[in-house]
Amino acid sequence: MITKAFFYHAGCPVCVAAERNVANSLDPKKYHVESVHLGENKSRIRDAEAAGIRSVPALVLDGAVFHINFGADIGALK
Amino acid sequence: MITKAFFYHAGCPVCVAAERNVANSLDPKKYHVESVHLGENKSRIRDAEAAGIRSVPALVLDGAVFHINFGADIGALK
Repeated sequence: MITKAFFYHAGCPVCVAAERNVANSLDPKKYHVESVHLGENKSRIRDAEAAGIRSVPALVLDGAVFHINFGADIGALK
Repeated sequence: MITKAFFYHAGCPVCVAAERNVANSLDPKKYHVESVHLGENKSRIRDAEAAGIRSVPALVLDGAVFHINFGADIGALK
């Protein structure tokens, strides 16, 4: 079964590396990953915070948040 | 091409979640992931530190380190 997943980022270098190596490398048979640029889609920040995102880049897989390294605090994107 | 990757952990709950959802969900057509329990294999701590690991859980993909959330400082495992 393919599950919808989310990758939240802000286009920063740390984010780009995490997207390329981690988010884009998830098994397409397990996850369909939507990449959300919170700097360009500020209306999605509320959803991200509700999911538990405190910084970007971060993945949400099966409802669980995985912060990957540290690019920016989500508060800095508002 | 399948690349060798490493997942460093210490068996902690944060590590287990990251292994299940992230490390084990990487595309097997891209990465072959070796899972290394640093608490049980202290001789591997030097390699992990040399790779740039500062805390676990963490992935090393194509030589780049991705710390995932925070389970334990690597110094606490020595």
